Amino acid sequence: MNVYEESLKLHEQTKGKYEIRSKVKVGNKDDLSLAYTPGVAEPCKKIHEDVENVYKYTAKGNVIAVVTDGSAVLGLGDIGPEAGLPVMEGKAVLFKAFGDVDAIPICIGSKDVEDIVRTVKLISPSLGGINLEDISAPRCFEIEDRLKAELDIPVFHDDQHGTAVVVLAALMNAVKITKQSLSDLTVIINGAGAAGNAITRLLIKAGVKDCILCDTKGAIYKGRDNMNPSKELIAQITNKEGKKGSLKDVMAGANVFVGVSAPGSVTAEMVKSMHKDAFVFAMANPVPEIFPDDAKAAGARIVGTGRSDFPNQINNVLAFPGIFRGALDVRARDINDEMKIAAAYAIAQTVNPEDLCEEFIIPLAFDKKVSENVAAAVAKAAIDSGAARIKG
Amino acid sequence: MNVYEESLKLHEQTKGKYEIRSKVKVGNKDDLSLAYTPGVAEPCKKIHEDVENVYKYTAKGNVIAVVTDGSAVLGLGDIGPEAGLPVMEGKAVLFKAFGDVDAIPICIGSKDVEDIVRTVKLISPSLGGINLEDISAPRCFEIEDRLKAELDIPVFHDDQHGTAVVVLAALMNAVKITKQSLSDLTVIINGAGAAGNAITRLLIKAGVKDCILCDTKGAIYKGRDNMNPSKELIAQITNKEGKKGSLKDVMAGANVFVGVSAPGSVTAEMVKSMHKDAFVFAMANPVPEIFPDDAKAAGARIVGTGRSDFPNQINNVLAFPGIFRGALDVRARDINDEMKIAAAYAIAQTVNPEDLCEEFIIPLAFDKKVSENVAAAVAKAAIDSGAARIKG
Repeated sequence: MNVYEESLKLHEQTKGKYEIRSKVKVGNKDDLSLAYTPGVAEPCKKIHEDVENVYKYTAKGNVIAVVTDGSAVLGLGDIGPEAGLPVMEGKAVLFKAFGDVDAIPICIGSKDVEDIVRTVKLISPSLGGINLEDISAPRCFEIEDRLKAELDIPVFHDDQHGTAVVVLAALMNAVKITKQSLSDLTVIINGAGAAGNAITRLLIKAGVKDCILCDTKGAIYKGRDNMNPSKELIAQITNKEGKKGSLKDVMAGANVFVGVSAPGSVTAEMVKSMHKDAFVFAMANPVPEIFPDDAKAAGARIVGTGRSDFPNQINNVLAFPGIFRGALDVRARDINDEMKIAAAYAIAQTVNPEDLCEEFIIPLAFDKKVSENVAAAVAKAAIDSGAARIKG
Repeated sequence: MNVYEESLKLHEQTKGKYEIRSKVKVGNKDDLSLAYTPGVAEPCKKIHEDVENVYKYTAKGNVIAVVTDGSAVLGLGDIGPEAGLPVMEGKAVLFKAFGDVDAIPICIGSKDVEDIVRTVKLISPSLGGINLEDISAPRCFEIEDRLKAELDIPVFHDDQHGTAVVVLAALMNAVKITKQSLSDLTVIINGAGAAGNAITRLLIKAGVKDCILCDTKGAIYKGRDNMNPSKELIAQITNKEGKKGSLKDVMAGANVFVGVSAPGSVTAEMVKSMHKDAFVFAMANPVPEIFPDDAKAAGARIVGTGRSDFPNQINNVLAFPGIFRGALDVRARDINDEMKIAAAYAIAQTVNPEDLCEEFIIPLAFDKKVSENVAAAVAKAAIDSGAARIKG
């Protein structure tokens, strides 16, 4: 049996990957009277007196929703909310295992921005945070922006920011090996969807020299045709020299290639044209933009992919459980750039200096130290940046 | 410490009463590749091919939402969605403990019928059923009716139908003691809210001779002033003799009093005026319409309350876990009257004939046999009535 058949069998056997567990006993009359009526009236009254008490007497502060509309699931595309549920359940399992965060899968039966925003807002009283997942661009940008503005609990689109954080962490360690700094790097990002946009923005924020984001028409620059509002904004903060042309054209001389695009979209020739000590993060899944052996043979010094069967797996699970753990611990209003950069730094730091090498720039996905370190760093960054509502 | 202080302490210690538990391991690379990427793509594809496969490969079939807007919480009234959360969590705990149903608390931040209906519909792709809770009348009627019509998963407003099922179960056993049948009984129901309406309808359906529903203006009859649409409908199917007057007036000669109204609203004199072998179910909480000792002294033969510290506790927990367990087991489209009456019968039957007496007409709330019996009866009734989508 291959991994797909085996996974199908596992899903059929378990009939779903999560369940609800009770934290209190209800074995007799006395238990019932405390967990339920009449005793339960007392926490209700206390919360009615001061709504902040909801964090003191309920699970809200540790419960988030993993929300999708099923419009951009894995590489499968718009397969609908029900078909997205196995991924949301998988996410819930990872949130619990790596961050002790209680995550509820919520699959929304509409792709309308207004519907999704309104639904998430209306169910938020019982939730401590919102993880958006597998929602297609450009709707995901508006949904996230609006929810961030209108809710006072953290909202995070993992496909965007989780990926961006882990790419940044990989870059932070890669430059240690080549004895460069982020400000030395010109980074080409291929794929202008959710992940590509967020990676570009976070790398700029973290201080790389320049980014050029490419879509299927090539490099994005100020005044180009075939733009949309998010590309217009990206053009303002990237591609300082206004380079035009194809992906191949702009990769020549660049330090870093980051692919969140299509299998096989990078050739050996394109890698050869890059700057000395190039990094190639080819994250198309399951087939990368270029296979590691080919990239290495073409001169790339450090190569990462999204796959667990090659070195340097750039996997969101390194980020999201710890980010939410940290945000919930200090009851953050938001997950801001400072918190994301702190998360990236913590992921990078988790690799021991003596272990750090071309083939090991990023911790293993199932290393539980990572989320602990990320949580602590994110909580501190939330406090320092004013996003925290309590001080840990 | 009294029960309220002790409950508050419990809630503070546990910080909420439920958590998410993973049903799969994610301890290493292989685990991750089955529970999450890349393997998870396979169940996603199968569900995309046929949406019914969502029941085969995900938790949907065992997960329900416990939904409130916080507008009618316990006896506390409209305390808001956050303050209602401790009750929803308590319900989730009871669903798991007594029915092995995974129930997610969802507190909605709006009292608008349209908002609530739309929100519940939009989150339904990941849910196997909807338990409405603590939503005030008359909005609860419209919300339930619309959701039942527009969704193909079971929708149940527990405050209405759970209470009605347990009252019917109590009556079924009470008439065994007095050697009557339901068709001998004239029942006075005081309180024309969610519970009073549903009790009246179910008792009529189950074959009692007559019901008279009273509100604060007294008996409801055809052509009365101060009516609303639900009262107009009730007037069509109750009070066959068109009796007018106060609660006191209509209680004279009646066989049964069912109170879902206000503490102390029934006097000894009113009970004295009832028919021989009267049943008094005084369910106002925590202070009943009349205390059991007073009702007994005034001539009532069988007395029940909502409280666990008196005999015959009429408690919804006898009904809802088993009803949903049965409905989910056969993937019922609905929870119809046949299923509710089957549930009542199963609850009544759970009391051993040798134990049945005036002080023990209804099983104890924490007797786990009850929900097993209810589940089996409800599943069978769903199959027999055509509501089941699978045959057990």
